[in-house]
Amino acid sequence: MDTESFIAFSNRLADAASDSIMPHFRAAPSVDNKASAEFDPVTVADRAAEAAMRALINDHYPDHGIVGEEYGSERADADHVWVLDPIDGTRAFITGLPVWGTLIGLTIEGRPAFGMMAQAFTRERYAGDGARAWYTGPGGDQALQTRSCSALSAAMLFTTSPYLFAEDEARAYRRVERAARLARYGCDCYAYCMVGSGQADLVVEAGLQSYDIVALIPIVEGAGGRLTDWDGGSAAGGGRIAASGDPRLHDRLLEELNLGLAE
Amino acid sequence: MDTESFIAFSNRLADAASDSIMPHFRAAPSVDNKASAEFDPVTVADRAAEAAMRALINDHYPDHGIVGEEYGSERADADHVWVLDPIDGTRAFITGLPVWGTLIGLTIEGRPAFGMMAQAFTRERYAGDGARAWYTGPGGDQALQTRSCSALSAAMLFTTSPYLFAEDEARAYRRVERAARLARYGCDCYAYCMVGSGQADLVVEAGLQSYDIVALIPIVEGAGGRLTDWDGGSAAGGGRIAASGDPRLHDRLLEELNLGLAE
Repeated sequence: MDTESFIAFSNRLADAASDSIMPHFRAAPSVDNKASAEFDPVTVADRAAEAAMRALINDHYPDHGIVGEEYGSERADADHVWVLDPIDGTRAFITGLPVWGTLIGLTIEGRPAFGMMAQAFTRERYAGDGARAWYTGPGGDQALQTRSCSALSAAMLFTTSPYLFAEDEARAYRRVERAARLARYGCDCYAYCMVGSGQADLVVEAGLQSYDIVALIPIVEGAGGRLTDWDGGSAAGGGRIAASGDPRLHDRLLEELNLGLAE
Repeated sequence: MDTESFIAFSNRLADAASDSIMPHFRAAPSVDNKASAEFDPVTVADRAAEAAMRALINDHYPDHGIVGEEYGSERADADHVWVLDPIDGTRAFITGLPVWGTLIGLTIEGRPAFGMMAQAFTRERYAGDGARAWYTGPGGDQALQTRSCSALSAAMLFTTSPYLFAEDEARAYRRVERAARLARYGCDCYAYCMVGSGQADLVVEAGLQSYDIVALIPIVEGAGGRLTDWDGGSAAGGGRIAASGDPRLHDRLLEELNLGLAE
C-alpha cells in the first residue's frame, strides 16, 4: 500500500467512524448523569465506529489483520495490520471537548507505516507515513513540520494526566515538567498532533496500549520529530512513550526521564 | 440594552476579535520556540483583539465603560461596563488547542447582565443573559441547558490546573476531586460552557480576575446552573470561583470546599 492509497482508504474509515460517533458527541445533555458503563454514549459510539471500520477493512482488504480497542484482534499475524482506536481521549469526549480523535494506523511487517488522527467535530485530519506528514482541516491543507526547540527550558510539554503514572514514572515525569517552560494536561492523541504541527514540543506518557500510539508514530516522525519508548526503542507496543518535535531534544528528554526513574 | 441587541453587538465584537486573533493561532510553527513576552503571538493577538473591540464599543456606545485584560479600565463607573478578555486560555492558545475563547461580558449597575464566549477556530458561540442561554455553532443553534446531577460522586469536574491553587485552596479542591467521578484539567472558559451545555457538572477555580469570569456568569446561570464565589456570593469580582450545572449540587460543593479550607 502506498501513501496515497492509505490516505484515501483511511479517509473512508474516518468518515465511517465520524458517522457512528457524532450522533453521540454532546448528546442527551438533559439526562441525569448516571450512565452505566454498558450504555454510556462513549461506549456505544466507540463500538459502532470500530465495527464500521472493521467492516470496511474486511470488505476491501480481507487478508489484512485488525487490532482494535473494542473488539480485539483478528489475523494479527498478517503482513498488513490495521490498528484502530475509534475514540482516543474518552474523558475529552464525555466532557464535550473537541480534543479526542479517531486513530487509524497501519503496520507493515510489524512496523508502523501509516497513521491518521481524525477529529470529527473540528473536521481536522492529521496523517503521515514516517517520511512526511499532512494536515487537512479548517486551517487549510498543509504539510506538517515540527518546530525547532533546542532546550528543555524552552519546551512546551503535554501529558494526559500527571496522575496516570506509577510512582517511579511520576518522578521521571515531574523532572521533565520542572525543566520545561510549560505543561499542559488532558489531550491524548491531540497532543501528538500539536507536536507534529509545530505547536508544542514534547509529550510524555506511560501505560499506553498499542492502539493508543501506532497511528501517531508515522505522523510525528513524518513531521520531523521522534516518538519512541523511554529507552529509545520502538513505541509500537505501547507502554512508556516519549515524543519530541525537535529530534535534537529527544536524547535529552530520555536522559532526564531515566534519571527520574533511577532517583 | 436587551438580549437581542447584546447578542447582535457582541457578535460584531467577536467577529472583530476573531479577525485579529486567527492569523496568530497556530502561526509560525517553524520559528524556534523562544519568543519573548513582548512579541509572542498570543500577546500580539490579545492586544489587537482588545483594541478592535474597544474601538467598536467607543464608536457605538461612547457612554459605556470598558474593563479589559490588556488595556485596563475606562469609564469603569458607568452604568454599562463591557468586561473583555480577548484570549482566555492562553496555554491552550499557545499549544494550538481549540479550547480558548474570547470573553465578552456586560455589567449593568455592577451586575453581570449578558455574556458571550466565542471560540474562533471551531466557530462556536455560547451566550446568556442570566435567565436563558444559547449556542450557535457546528452543532446547530440551540438553547443551552445544564444537566441534572444530584451527587458529587456522579459529577464531572473541571479545573484549569490543580497547581494554580494556594495551599488551603488546593486542599479544598482535592476534597472535591476525590469525591467527584472524574476530573478534567486545562479548559479555562470552555469548561464553564461545557457545564452550561450539560456536558459536565462542576468547575472549581481560584485566583481569577473579573474579566475571566463576568461573561460566563450569565451563560451558566441562564442555562440553569449556579456560578458564585466559594462563599456563595457574587463571582463578578473574580477570586475563588465555583460553578454547578445542577443548582441542587451547589450548596454541597461550597460546603465541601469550605471544609477543605478549614482542614
